[in-house]
Amino acid sequence: VNLILLEPGEISRDGRARIGGDRARHLVSVLRAAPGHRIRAGLVDGPTGAAIVEACGEDAVDLRCTFDGPVPCRPAVDLLLALPRPKVLRRLWAQLAALGVGQIILTNAERVERHYFDTHVLAPECYRPLLVEGLQQARDTRLPAVSIHRRLRVLVEDDLDRLFPEGVRLTAHPDAARTITGALQNRGDRRVLLAVGPEGGWNGFELELLAAHGFEDVGIGPRTLRSDTACVALIAMVNEVLR
Amino acid sequence: VNLILLEPGEISRDGRARIGGDRARHLVSVLRAAPGHRIRAGLVDGPTGAAIVEACGEDAVDLRCTFDGPVPCRPAVDLLLALPRPKVLRRLWAQLAALGVGQIILTNAERVERHYFDTHVLAPECYRPLLVEGLQQARDTRLPAVSIHRRLRVLVEDDLDRLFPEGVRLTAHPDAARTITGALQNRGDRRVLLAVGPEGGWNGFELELLAAHGFEDVGIGPRTLRSDTACVALIAMVNEVLR
Repeated sequence: VNLILLEPGEISRDGRARIGGDRARHLVSVLRAAPGHRIRAGLVDGPTGAAIVEACGEDAVDLRCTFDGPVPCRPAVDLLLALPRPKVLRRLWAQLAALGVGQIILTNAERVERHYFDTHVLAPECYRPLLVEGLQQARDTRLPAVSIHRRLRVLVEDDLDRLFPEGVRLTAHPDAARTITGALQNRGDRRVLLAVGPEGGWNGFELELLAAHGFEDVGIGPRTLRSDTACVALIAMVNEVLR
Repeated sequence: VNLILLEPGEISRDGRARIGGDRARHLVSVLRAAPGHRIRAGLVDGPTGAAIVEACGEDAVDLRCTFDGPVPCRPAVDLLLALPRPKVLRRLWAQLAALGVGQIILTNAERVERHYFDTHVLAPECYRPLLVEGLQQARDTRLPAVSIHRRLRVLVEDDLDRLFPEGVRLTAHPDAARTITGALQNRGDRRVLLAVGPEGGWNGFELELLAAHGFEDVGIGPRTLRSDTACVALIAMVNEVLR
């Protein structure tokens, strides 16, 4: 943890917060927090700042916070991801937040197994702490927005222009010849929406649907990657090109 | 699994192989292998080809293999990685092989905990099947070479010129201004060795040691990433720039 992220509701009007559970234990045992120490802090979706440790108990740490730093920029990349296996998705939440994505749009596709939608990994109680973990790692405060869509066609035809009104839409496709660098050349500083398919790939109908709604194919070479590796790799590549 | 990878010793002179265990179960239950089916196959560190399923039993599948495809190129990126936590390293093996790295050089550093070296995740019996899993995902046959070094200074001063005789050496550093794209411009098609530090970063002595041995700093932006996310992101970025 390189920053401790607090929810607005955890902080009293005079800037005091008592944190418990895993976060308190992490502060004491890993970061060796002790009264008087100063720790980087941030407010979820708000500014960064600092927290002074006022007291350390067995299961609680008292902090006095000042949030006088900037609000980090919203990351410029959004992700449209065919729902991966629950085990893979669980691993992915923190990594996506650490890399920085503005929003995570999860969708069905032909090659997504239906029971993937029943997992608790899709419940905010499960994924929100994992997103916070990733933000704390990366010293960010901007929680990615998450939305879950059970029908790709409805998502793309009816909802996507609201979720991603303007910017560059890209579909990652193993066979595509155009590189991310090529696709983003001369595009200015617009947002990028990256569509990543299921492990078996999008089917023909899905690729046509995406193409009809402005998605351009980009390739990342002939290697087939697992969803989590592909997402991390693609987001990193887009970020590198946008820098 | 997008290719079934066989060890040279598993194949008889007439191209027949009997595979068992998890691989056989995967072939039957996930890939629905049945007699007569044709499957992509490859020989570890050798050519690609095809396997015809001759028989499927409960715990064994008989294959007849022909390896008449090309030997894949050795990936152009090598990794020098400060040994991460065993849990993180375990997750990383398959992802590194899937992304494609020529060799994985693991090393000590000040901020690596000593007990990390005691893990079974460093035993070939543990990591080789994970590397094979990644190669099978990516349809590659070239097993990354792995070496483990308990002293960074000895590695860098005495062993590195043999392990990585020529090419571009880069150190990933959060603060560096030079991008990977910038560092690799006009470098031709030389190999790239990427040094990725421990979660707490390299210390000053280590950074100087690397710099004195030809490593140039490259930044990937201000976000601090976990070792596994950082490795996947950096290798993907280098591959994208080299394409």
